[in-house]
This record gives sequence, structure tokens and C-alpha cells, in this order.
Amino acid sequence: MIWDVSHQCYPHKVLTGRRDRMRTLRKKDGLSGFTRRSESPYDPFGAAHSSTSVSAGLGFAVARDLSGGSQDVVCVVGDGALTAGMAYEGLNNAGDLNRRMFVILNDNNMSISPPTGALSDHLNDLASRTDALARERSLFEHMGFEYHGPVDGHDVKALVGVLSKLRSKSTGPVLLHAVTRKGAGYSFAETSHDKYHGVSKFDITSGKQSKAKAKAPSYTKVFANALVEEARKDDRVVAITAAMAAGTGVDVFGKEFPERTFDVGIAEQHAVTFAGGLAASGMKPFCAIYSTFLQRGYDQVVHDIALQNLPVRFAIDRAGLVGADGPTHAGAFDVGYLANLPNFTVMAASDEAELTRMVATAAGHDDGPIAFRYPRGEGTGLALPATATPLTIGKGRIVERGESAALLSFGARLSHCLDARKKLEKQGISVTVADARFAKPLDVELLENLFSTHELLVPIEEGATGGFGALVLHHLAAKGLLDGRCDIRTMTLPDSFISQAAPEDMYEQAGLNASQIAALVPTALAGKSTGTRRMHAWPGKQDNFVQMTHRAEDR
Amino acid sequence: MIWDVSHQCYPHKVLTGRRDRMRTLRKKDGLSGFTRRSESPYDPFGAAHSSTSVSAGLGFAVARDLSGGSQDVVCVVGDGALTAGMAYEGLNNAGDLNRRMFVILNDNNMSISPPTGALSDHLNDLASRTDALARERSLFEHMGFEYHGPVDGHDVKALVGVLSKLRSKSTGPVLLHAVTRKGAGYSFAETSHDKYHGVSKFDITSGKQSKAKAKAPSYTKVFANALVEEARKDDRVVAITAAMAAGTGVDVFGKEFPERTFDVGIAEQHAVTFAGGLAASGMKPFCAIYSTFLQRGYDQVVHDIALQNLPVRFAIDRAGLVGADGPTHAGAFDVGYLANLPNFTVMAASDEAELTRMVATAAGHDDGPIAFRYPRGEGTGLALPATATPLTIGKGRIVERGESAALLSFGARLSHCLDARKKLEKQGISVTVADARFAKPLDVELLENLFSTHELLVPIEEGATGGFGALVLHHLAAKGLLDGRCDIRTMTLPDSFISQAAPEDMYEQAGLNASQIAALVPTALAGKSTGTRRMHAWPGKQDNFVQMTHRAEDR
Repeated sequence: MIWDVSHQCYPHKVLTGRRDRMRTLRKKDGLSGFTRRSESPYDPFGAAHSSTSVSAGLGFAVARDLSGGSQDVVCVVGDGALTAGMAYEGLNNAGDLNRRMFVILNDNNMSISPPTGALSDHLNDLASRTDALARERSLFEHMGFEYHGPVDGHDVKALVGVLSKLRSKSTGPVLLHAVTRKGAGYSFAETSHDKYHGVSKFDITSGKQSKAKAKAPSYTKVFANALVEEARKDDRVVAITAAMAAGTGVDVFGKEFPERTFDVGIAEQHAVTFAGGLAASGMKPFCAIYSTFLQRGYDQVVHDIALQNLPVRFAIDRAGLVGADGPTHAGAFDVGYLANLPNFTVMAASDEAELTRMVATAAGHDDGPIAFRYPRGEGTGLALPATATPLTIGKGRIVERGESAALLSFGARLSHCLDARKKLEKQGISVTVADARFAKPLDVELLENLFSTHELLVPIEEGATGGFGALVLHHLAAKGLLDGRCDIRTMTLPDSFISQAAPEDMYEQAGLNASQIAALVPTALAGKSTGTRRMHAWPGKQDNFVQMTHRAEDR
Repeated sequence: MIWDVSHQCYPHKVLTGRRDRMRTLRKKDGLSGFTRRSESPYDPFGAAHSSTSVSAGLGFAVARDLSGGSQDVVCVVGDGALTAGMAYEGLNNAGDLNRRMFVILNDNNMSISPPTGALSDHLNDLASRTDALARERSLFEHMGFEYHGPVDGHDVKALVGVLSKLRSKSTGPVLLHAVTRKGAGYSFAETSHDKYHGVSKFDITSGKQSKAKAKAPSYTKVFANALVEEARKDDRVVAITAAMAAGTGVDVFGKEFPERTFDVGIAEQHAVTFAGGLAASGMKPFCAIYSTFLQRGYDQVVHDIALQNLPVRFAIDRAGLVGADGPTHAGAFDVGYLANLPNFTVMAASDEAELTRMVATAAGHDDGPIAFRYPRGEGTGLALPATATPLTIGKGRIVERGESAALLSFGARLSHCLDARKKLEKQGISVTVADARFAKPLDVELLENLFSTHELLVPIEEGATGGFGALVLHHLAAKGLLDGRCDIRTMTLPDSFISQAAPEDMYEQAGLNASQIAALVPTALAGKSTGTRRMHAWPGKQDNFVQMTHRAEDR
């Protein structure tokens, strides 16, 4: 049984031996909010991103037939997930291969956002008809599936009857259309459409989800407001979301500019190239897609946007580790998969004020594609500028000056670098902290300046290897600067997927919190000074170097 | 007018001012084999990868409506391209937005490979019917399009009549179903299904395409034969192609193992997760997808394969620069987008004998996902081993030993490194050449050994930054080894897209041919020795270093 997205898997977990652990759901060391292979043999295929179940299920069905097995494959997929091309690809192939398998369409007429796309009308039409002709000419029959339904998905007795009948007589691919109500049986959930998707802790009698009070506006909200500002000044600014209007803040934009807002469904591939068409026509499209979900549109980013150098603006929310949603939603790879593409400009916001400047920078950048990434959750509480002034492309900034080591942060680790600096100052180690702002183009002047005036440079990012730090290293190697006068250590996400926990716990596991940053510096400096490395005479740095070495010995 | 894939754009190019340049097609400095924005205002959106036209066209249509324009948008898309989820996403959104736009379905019942998927039956059914009911319940009507047709796509007069009528009266999205024969009017093309896709020069009277005689079997062929060998030994080996059976060599596999061969259509997203389902069931799926096309399945690679650590084998053909197909088909990014993922093993074949070993290695690797990349075109002519022995995971090899500089090649630049070595030996510079074989896991023992015994290390790859060289740099930085005793220069594809030409010309533009590799070495060594860098005493290396410096001065 393969759940699609699998936010619906909680009862499944209760029924498959995980009842006693349900209170650990989405917590550190607890149950995942999704199905997960490592958690139970009843989770044969993990999920989280939408629309994968039919493809995975077909793999199981084919493997069964090749190895002479007899187990059944059941995929449960929502109507929202059917808007994704991947689901269509899976249905098309499954219909062709004609293996026995069951797809249950859980049609609650809801995605996370309200349903969108022509498909929604077709499903509504099917749900309201009982004539054989409509069924015979449904999308699913065209895809080679035997279509059954519609059935009331809340009538368990009837459902068991239908399923039993299908089980006993089906030989090929079957789709059962079950019509449901989201949150059925719990009035608060039934009446608030999008609030019970991946729920946090809530009070049963009032239906209220407990959320910690925000100390600062979220990055998402800051982005949304900044984009609205830009749109007021320039009517070429349009916003695109792939079925995540609220999650990306595009809903805020949509309230003021409904004609310039496009929710394309769970369809990141289309979203990117659609934005490309808009950009090629002189519009200023902002494509607001989470870091992990943009992976779905990667080929389109390369082939339709980067290669044609089209000025599509990518607003990349959920960059870095995201907390309760865990590794499936961790925005780990976007810097690597974007900043190594020709023509791209790639920024990361170190705080919410920077984010507003990056939105302004992107709005004004017509020379090619530009992306800016920012984390999930609250900002730092910084006051926002009354008017966001665009940044100079490829220019970072020094935030605090020091002498021994330079921390070069790309993105929201900046505040943690500043904390690390305080810790190091107490140890007598003088540290510069800089905000790179751009992974591409690199601020090579800043970089080379830091590198030539410090003993140690530490590029830090909330992302995997192959991104910002890699580009720093590539540049220094190309210029022949890795000559030992300044040492370098890159800090990135580790080479592993990190399970869900509070973001700060996840970053601790990743080795990227302030204490861990601070711990790296004296270790690296000591390695440099104590003979495992050779010392180099360097005019003007000698005194500082000796002083630092002594202090390190005092510890 | 937006052509999908756009191999069909040659007459369009003739008619839009490019007739006199048609003989330069697909050649260096000549016309692209695809539509290209920089080439003509009549190419509003470039193409090459399949199924992008509806999405791009919708962008143009929406931009037109937002800016009060009046131009029309026409997308021409093949039936093969409709198997891709992206086309479905575009249709679903276009049907919903209900803008005036025209999609012409060029239905020749052919993809590059024979048509596949249930959709093909639906189109055949539609093409044979004329009753209104069939039309009204077509896939396209379900997607919100007004369906017209079928029409004979070769009856120009009738076609003009239909198009004129549609132009005058349509207000929303319209699909015109034109039935055609591939190669119509040219018997040789009509009768050989897949040979006239992206044609090379051919003799009109005989229909024969001129191909230079092969000096060695192609990598594709070597892969196909090696996979057949593995499949004979292990019936869990299965092969998956996304509509490129001949291009990937999966057709060869399919002849011997039709039941274990899966052509899923132009559906890389589905292909990857389908392979995941097979792997989760204990099969050994080989997913054979070109480097650029695998970009389409990137999220599935991350989310369904890497994260679940499923042993899917990725056979990545067309790695590196590919010649006449140009930048849209250049396999530049796969090392970066795969080797930075946790759990992945990533190999590159330096020659065809190595490729057979990598196929064997992949077949035997059940611990997680594994990828091996190899270039387009002929191998080096090396004799193939009678039995391919698997490689030790994470172990490279030294091919030639030297003293001053070490060239560490990842993939098929190896022969060029050996040529560079010969050139350098003539200049008195002693060079080690090593074959890394693995970008992940890195052979850190080999790497550190080379780094500690040479003056210069040059990691070389047929790929962009952020890949093999980046991982080498990350490792050396993490170990504190970038201390100046050994210098390092990475050689990668440059930060630009390279237009079509012969592969050797493209690699020259990229700065990666043997002469260019050879030229880098003395420059880097000289920089190290002549005072722009400081000299370091290093026991046992001093003599060699001085000797090398002298020789460099002799030049």
C-alpha cells in the first residue's frame, strides 16, 4: 500500500504497529510525518513530494510479475496530486503495461491550495455522473485504466464491498474514484480548508492548533510584502506558485493582484517554462517555489531558462533545514544545482531586511535568471528598510572586522557566525564576519581581500557541498591562491540526510551551529601554527600570527 | 510559433530568412538544429528537450493578454511529446486559464522510439473516429481544450481552411489534431522509422546517411553488450529507457530480454521512481538516461532514490559535450547534481573497457544508488576484457607515474591527459596521470598520496564546476591540506554554454584538450616557483623541484 504525499498516513501508522509512538510524530527521534521505509515493513515506499505513488506502485507490480509473486499493489492518490505530470506519466505507462494494480483516487476536491487546472472540472463532472458513457471516456480509461466509481469514500461498508469485488475480479490496472470530504467527521477540519494539512498539535474541543508566538515576521511574509511593493511600482511583475499559494506567500500577492497571480497546480516543470514564456515576452515573473520542489523543474531551469538567459526570478523558500517536515523537505541542494549553471545569479538572504533588498534586486535584474534563497520560519526581528534598495550584483559586505579568521557566510547562518565571533573574541581570537550575499557571481574582490589578510577563511552555507563553498574553492584554485598563506575550511550540510527535529537541533546534527563554527576556528588555526603545517613568512602578518598562536596555547 | 523539440523546424528556418545558411546546419558557427532565440525573431522560444511548447506558449499568451497585445500563439507538438508529464501540466493549466491559443498536434504515431503508453491508443482511437461524442470526451476536452480534428496534416488546402476558420472564431485554447506520416513524400524516410530523426548529411537518391566509419564501437554499444552479459547472469537485471531505446542501447537489451525491458515514454520522472519501486522489490534496475534528460528526473533521484538509498543503477550516456546537438544536449551537470547527494556512488568511464567494469560494478552494488557516466560516440579502440571484473568501490588507479605534476582525470579526458603528459615529458616535466574512476566516494588515499608527492594536482573532468573537482577541493580543505606544498588547479567545463561543433572543437573552446591541459601545467608550476608564491622546503622533494624549475626556464 503506497500513500501519495502521505500526510494521510497517520491512521495507517496507528493500524500498523506504531500506535504507541504516535505522540512522537514529527518530533526528534520520533515517527516521521510521512511514510518511511526504515520505520515499518508496512511502508514499502516513502513519500512526501507529491504524485510518486503510481510510478512506485507500478515498479512493485512489475517486480511481482517478473518474480512470480502474488501480492497486490494499492496506491492512494489525491486529486491534487493528479495535477502533476509525474502522475500522468505513471498512469500512461501503467495503462500500457496492463498489470494488475489498484489506484484509489481520494478526491476531496482539495490540494493544499484550492484545486486548480482543467482536471478539477473533469473530476467534478465524473463525480456527478453515473452513466457508463462518461466513465468509459474518462481520463483514466484513456490512460488504459478500468475506471470504477464514483463511490462515497466515507461509506466504509460500501467501500469494502467495492474493493472486495475489484480484488476478486481485476486483472489489469484499476482506478477507484472515491469522493471524500477533507477532515470528514471533525467539523473544525471540514470547515477550514487548508489548515489541517500536516497539522501541528491542536486542541480537540476548539480545533485550535498551538503555535508558538512569533517574535518576528516569517521570511515568507516578508517576501510576500516585498513582492507586493515591487508589483505596485511595475505592472510587469507577476507571481507564479505551484499549488503552494499560502506556503510561499503568493496568496498575499494574489489578494492585491489576482490577474497577475498564477497557481499552476502541482506542476513545477510547467511553472518554470511558463515563467520562461512570460519572461521572453517582457514580463517579470517571480517563480516562488520551495528549494526541494524546484528540483522538479530542474531540467526546465537548465534548458528553458539558463540556456536562453531569460530573466525569470526564482524565490526559493525553505532553503536549508526545515524542522518537522524532515529530510524530504530540506532545501539542501539548490545552491549547487543553480550556481553552477551559466548565466545564473544566485543570492541568499542573511536576514529579512536583506531579503527585501534581494526582491528589489531581482525585480530590477533583466539581464538573466536570478534566484534568491531564504529559510523557513521567522526572521531575526530586524527592522525592515522603508524602501528596499537593490544590491549591486556580485557584491558582498563585511559585517564585523577582525584579524585572524574570516567567516564568510552565504545566507542565514550569518547570525550564528556573529555568535561564534563573540565566543571566539572571548578566547582572544579576532574574527571577521562577512556576508557573501552572492554565490554567483562571487564577490571575488571581497573574497581575495579576506583571503590575503587572514590566516583562515571559512565559507559557511546552509546547503550541501558543491555550492557556495565549492565555487569559492574553485576560484581560489584557479587564481593559484591556495598557497598556504591562508588556510580554508568549508562548512556545509553533511553528506547525510538529517531526520526531523527542531531546526536548531537539525543544524546541531549538521555541525553548523554557533558553537560548532566557533570550535572549528582554533582547531584549524592551531593546525596551521603547530607544525603539521609549515609556517610562512608573510609581511605584516607575523605579529598577529604569533600573538594568535600564544593565545591558542593559553586555552 | 513555438515548435516542440523542433527537429521539425528546418522548413521553418528556410521560410524565415535562413535559407542561405541551411548548409551550415548543426555545424560549427552554423545554424542550430533546433529553434534558437538568438538566431531569429521567428524563433520566439528555443527548444530541444521535449514537451516544453505548451508551457512556453501559455506564457506568451498570458503576457499578451496582460499587456494588451494581439499576436497569436501557436504551439506545434508531436504525439511522442504528449507522453511527458510536462505537456499534461501545460495543457491542464492552459485549459483552466482559458486564453486564446492554438496547439497543433502533429500525430505521426511516432516518438524517436516506437510510440508507447496508453495515450497512443487514445490518439489512434481519436484519429479513426469522427463522431462528436468521441471528440467531446477526448483527453483534450477533459483538459479544457476545444478539440478539432482529426485532419490530414498533408492536405495543405484543407489544413489552411481549418486553420483560417479556427483563427477567426476561437476565443479559448484550441487543439487541432493533424494526422501525419513521418517523412511523408520521401520514401526512404517513410519506411525507416527512427533513422530520420535529427538527420546527418544524406544522399537524396539512395536515402543513405553518410556516417564516418567507426574506428571503435560506441560507448552506447559497449554499455548495451555489457548489460546483456550481466542480465544473462542475473535475472533481476532489468533495463528502463525513456523513449530512447536505440540511443541508449536498450534496444539491444530488449531483443534478448523483452520481458525485462521497459520503454516508459518521454517520462524521466516516472522512469526514475518506477526504477525505485523495482529496486525496493529486490530487482536490479538499470535506468539508462542521457545526462541532460536525467535532469527531468532530478527530484525523483533525490527524493525517491537517494533519500531511500535504493539501489537503482543510472547509466548516463552523453556525458560531456556531444557535438552537433549542441548545448541543449551537453551533459555538463550530472556529476554536480548526483555526487553531492548522500548515499550516491558516482563513477565515470575513462574508456570502454572501464565502462564494462562499471556495468559489472553497478550490477553488484546493492548498497545504494550508483551512477556511471560515459560520453557520446566511439570508444578509444581498446580491447574489451573477456569478463568484466567489478571495481572496488571508491578506488582509482595510477595510469602513468611521474614526479612534478599529477593529472587526476575523472572520465574520458584520460586519453587527453596521457597526450598532455607526452607533450610535457618533451619539455622535461614529469607527470603522473591517474584515473579517479569515482567522484563519490572519492579515493582519498590516492588523492592524498598524489597531493603529498607532487608540486601540482590538476583534477580534470568533462563537466561543470561543483562536481568532481569541487569534491576534491572540499576534501583537501577539510583535511587542512591546502597548505601550499602542493598547488591545485581544477579543469572543468567553463561557465558558459558552448554552441554546436565537432566534439573536439567544443572541447577546445572549453579549454580542455591535450594542448590546453599541457599548457596549464608549466604555468601553474612556474607561478609556484618564481616568487608569486613562496617556496617551501619539503624533504625529498627539493631536488626534483629545482630540477623542474630549471627545465621550465630552459623553454
